Amino acid sequence: MNHTDRECLIGLNLIPQLTPKRTQKLFGRFKSFGEIWNAPASAFAQMFGSRVIGEAIASGRSEKLVDEEIAKAEEKAVRIVTLVDADYPPLLREIDDPPMVLYVRGEQPIDSGRAIAIVGTRRATRYGKMVAGRFASQLALKGFTIVSGLAAGIDASAHQATLDVGGFTVAVMGCGIDYPYPKSNQPIYERIVETGVVMSEYPMGSRPAKWTFPQRNRLLSGLSRGVLVIQAPERSGSLITARCALEQGRDVFSVPGNINSLTSAGSNRLIKQGAKLTDSVDDIFDEYPDLQVKRDIDPETEADAGPKLGDAEAAVYALISLEPVHMDDIIARADLSPTEASHILLLLQLENLIEESEGGRYIRKL
Amino acid sequence: MNHTDRECLIGLNLIPQLTPKRTQKLFGRFKSFGEIWNAPASAFAQMFGSRVIGEAIASGRSEKLVDEEIAKAEEKAVRIVTLVDADYPPLLREIDDPPMVLYVRGEQPIDSGRAIAIVGTRRATRYGKMVAGRFASQLALKGFTIVSGLAAGIDASAHQATLDVGGFTVAVMGCGIDYPYPKSNQPIYERIVETGVVMSEYPMGSRPAKWTFPQRNRLLSGLSRGVLVIQAPERSGSLITARCALEQGRDVFSVPGNINSLTSAGSNRLIKQGAKLTDSVDDIFDEYPDLQVKRDIDPETEADAGPKLGDAEAAVYALISLEPVHMDDIIARADLSPTEASHILLLLQLENLIEESEGGRYIRKL
Repeated sequence: MNHTDRECLIGLNLIPQLTPKRTQKLFGRFKSFGEIWNAPASAFAQMFGSRVIGEAIASGRSEKLVDEEIAKAEEKAVRIVTLVDADYPPLLREIDDPPMVLYVRGEQPIDSGRAIAIVGTRRATRYGKMVAGRFASQLALKGFTIVSGLAAGIDASAHQATLDVGGFTVAVMGCGIDYPYPKSNQPIYERIVETGVVMSEYPMGSRPAKWTFPQRNRLLSGLSRGVLVIQAPERSGSLITARCALEQGRDVFSVPGNINSLTSAGSNRLIKQGAKLTDSVDDIFDEYPDLQVKRDIDPETEADAGPKLGDAEAAVYALISLEPVHMDDIIARADLSPTEASHILLLLQLENLIEESEGGRYIRKL
Repeated sequence: MNHTDRECLIGLNLIPQLTPKRTQKLFGRFKSFGEIWNAPASAFAQMFGSRVIGEAIASGRSEKLVDEEIAKAEEKAVRIVTLVDADYPPLLREIDDPPMVLYVRGEQPIDSGRAIAIVGTRRATRYGKMVAGRFASQLALKGFTIVSGLAAGIDASAHQATLDVGGFTVAVMGCGIDYPYPKSNQPIYERIVETGVVMSEYPMGSRPAKWTFPQRNRLLSGLSRGVLVIQAPERSGSLITARCALEQGRDVFSVPGNINSLTSAGSNRLIKQGAKLTDSVDDIFDEYPDLQVKRDIDPETEADAGPKLGDAEAAVYALISLEPVHMDDIIARADLSPTEASHILLLLQLENLIEESEGGRYIRKL
């Protein structure tokens, strides 16, 4: 046999019994992927304490399958990046159980030194989606790569907001890169491929399974300097990602939420356990002085600078969020007379930017 | 002169120039309140570096005023508790600048060893009031004294909820104990006097002023083992109370809130600065093993056990909060069939306990 390490890795990754952890263990003993490819079944059996597993691994090696897999990938414009390739993301290489192989769509290299993973529940509320979008766009505008999992809810909002501001986003899938899951996010998938990167460690055509998502989560954190948990109920997959981040020595940021919201129970617990309470991108920037991210003088204003408004209108608009704010507060904070304030509030309503939610209280329109 | 220490303290406390800090300083030098009462103006002038202040303090001493003050208090059923009295709250005595005199209404002694102050904004949202009430009632039911400031918003909710469960609550005013401020809380004032304690360090008839509330705040924390901040915007008086607590070596607990809510910005910042994120009374109990407070097996259920429901209904009701919850989540968490869930949701709606907020999502009715 005269396979390259690359081909061996692709072939080994096709064997279901060879989890990344097991391959790492074998590599610790054989010191080369070529040696693993040529090792006898008995060596595997001994290492994993099971003749059945040993046989399965040994008989799973197939040059033919490797050739077919490479052809399939080529046909679908999928790059294969293995652990021995120069363009394998450096931060991901550092984790205990790095994927042997990454199937990649999209042309850009992955700058994992400036990546932040944004994760959260599929069943995000309006609040969660809004916050995910805000953080993603603000981070992306500062040159951060936004890593997420292409799921519904928080993931989708993070990818989408990044794309909308022309940022760079990486989607890591829990199934084969050519498997259309979830269907609802196929349009986002296609948009990401154009300017960002979609990747998976699973062979072409792999279906999603219960265990693939938790396993995939170690890649979200592994690719990133830190993980930002936006909205996580108890027993959320995002909490697995947070645990992976801690094991990998990455930072965990968590956005708090109202304590009567089940969707924030996990996020709040993370903060109790030591994650950094994060209510502004500055909380993230502050952790990475090496990246020389400048804090904004007023990040609130930048974040909300969407509509073009006069100074006084912008100042009032900036004071109004998705939580009702009383007119008296607006007057006090914006230092306006009640007449001026009424006038501006009326203008903002006419521009369809805000609405009155209850007596004298205003709320932003989405 | 042959005044008792008690009378001297009452008299000294009537002198506007004698702040508690200054009186402490004088006590450090004269070692007795009788000596301060008899000291020459020059001694005050020297100590505070001002002849004007020295004269003002000296000429402010008046036996007549002391007698009148005692008579006024008696007439209005107000007890006067001074620093040298046995019933002065022990924890309050420990702070750097304890009040010389407490004007007290209500019969009960103040068990400051089991007191928690609950503070927050006057402009509380529905969320803030609900959370204040929930924590107050749960703590009160475990035998904690609830200390607060008789203001509108969070304070009022905390006092009210404590009274409603038959608990013990202490209101500390920022004006004279007989000055009706705020008017809106007079009914609560009267209810507290019946079973709890209302107190003030200000002489009879004192009007509230801008500086009295921040000064009063050190008493809220000083009387308590810890301070629970429910909902505080930036630049809230509650943050002053939290700072007092830290200076006094008391614990600071803070309830997080959605980051787009201006009313929670200060609470979230406190957590960043080291306050304990608190989303359940257990977070408070855990800090006081000496008080032997038993955690509930399921505090969530106890908290929400208001209405009498069957087991399945109660389980579903416990899953529904003020944030919309999707029926699918309810089904998954309560381990019910969709049919069973629909049936129970309908029942709860008929009992006026919940309502459908948007397609398939349910919310608790207040």
